[in-house]
Amino acid sequence: MAERFKEWKAPDIKEGELTKWNWMVQHADRLKLGKHVDIGAFTYINAKNGITIGDRCQIGSHCSLYTVDTIGGKDGPITMEDGSCLGTHSTIMPGVTIGKDAIVGAHSLVLTDIPSGCIAHGAPAKVVKERETP
Amino acid sequence: MAERFKEWKAPDIKEGELTKWNWMVQHADRLKLGKHVDIGAFTYINAKNGITIGDRCQIGSHCSLYTVDTIGGKDGPITMEDGSCLGTHSTIMPGVTIGKDAIVGAHSLVLTDIPSGCIAHGAPAKVVKERETP
Amino acid sequence: MAERFKEWKAPDIKEGELTKWNWMVQHADRLKLGKHVDIGAFTYINAKNGITIGDRCQIGSHCSLYTVDTIGGKDGPITMEDGSCLGTHSTIMPGVTIGKDAIVGAHSLVLTDIPSGCIAHGAPAKVVKERETP
Repeated sequence: MAERFKEWKAPDIKEGELTKWNWMVQHADRLKLGKHVDIGAFTYINAKNGITIGDRCQIGSHCSLYTVDTIGGKDGPITMEDGSCLGTHSTIMPGVTIGKDAIVGAHSLVLTDIPSGCIAHGAPAKVVKERETP
Repeated sequence: MAERFKEWKAPDIKEGELTKWNWMVQHADRLKLGKHVDIGAFTYINAKNGITIGDRCQIGSHCSLYTVDTIGGKDGPITMEDGSCLGTHSTIMPGVTIGKDAIVGAHSLVLTDIPSGCIAHGAPAKVVKERETP
Repeated sequence: MAERFKEWKAPDIKEGELTKWNWMVQHADRLKLGKHVDIGAFTYINAKNGITIGDRCQIGSHCSLYTVDTIGGKDGPITMEDGSCLGTHSTIMPGVTIGKDAIVGAHSLVLTDIPSGCIAHGAPAKVVKERETP
């Protein structure tokens, strides 16, 4: 376990307000957050249709997780399974699941599920390789 | 009209400060905002050379609207006509008009005008299809 | 010198808090900032391994400068030499140097050094041309 998680505590999240790390959540009552999760500054999470973020997930700065897309007219929950990671400046759209230990590279737009253990990136995000088991 | 607009009120904008939705405007006195407009968290609007945003426009999180580009040396007003939409993580550069009901997809960099009713995306943004009339 | 720099003063930076322009720095004691530097709203700077930003540098809104990448497992200092510019929505990863007067276009992901005087953009950022001497 990384050194910085030894004193990890669940973040204090107030509906629609910046946390002390300057990320924010709307519909915070529908966000289920695992342990030892890192979320970067200026990340926006809209959990209207439910978001589950597993243990040891990492989310970079400037990400957006949308469970409702009022422009494209889509709704659906988002799941980031244990150990999955989302690089800086990436977006996850409604209905998407990021599989266990999958890594989504920086500046990605994730429209479809990313299987467990894969590495994906791009806009739209595509799988570029299976991740080697650590 | 979407349910969430039934109680829509013009946002309270203070020069250079975060609104209650955590987006911000510089030169707010030169921003003309229509009715039933949605603007997402962490969006930055620089209205130095004038910005007009029409009725029913939607702007995602993490967008930037620049009427002055101090790196490239460009200046010019920005117009988003009625019903036009800008996806999350998109940038509009000086002098650009987004036509009526046009949709700019997520993660786009808009350097040139987008005609009414079209769908465009990319960096730089290009028209990918005419939008079907709803 | 641009008009807006005539009254330029070094910004007041408090560890992990938004400045009055709504950008933020972590490990602020390891950030060395030159004169007449512009940094845009919602930019995130993680200076854990040291960041040097030279005189007259411009950094757009929504940028991220990472000297530590906990997803990819990289660490290293970042240098932006005098007069270099970083467009809106761009990311600099650990260990990268942006050369003197180089320009990185908007929406770029900078993984490798950018030589002095060049223009580069893209994800990943690639040099597209030598910059003409002004």
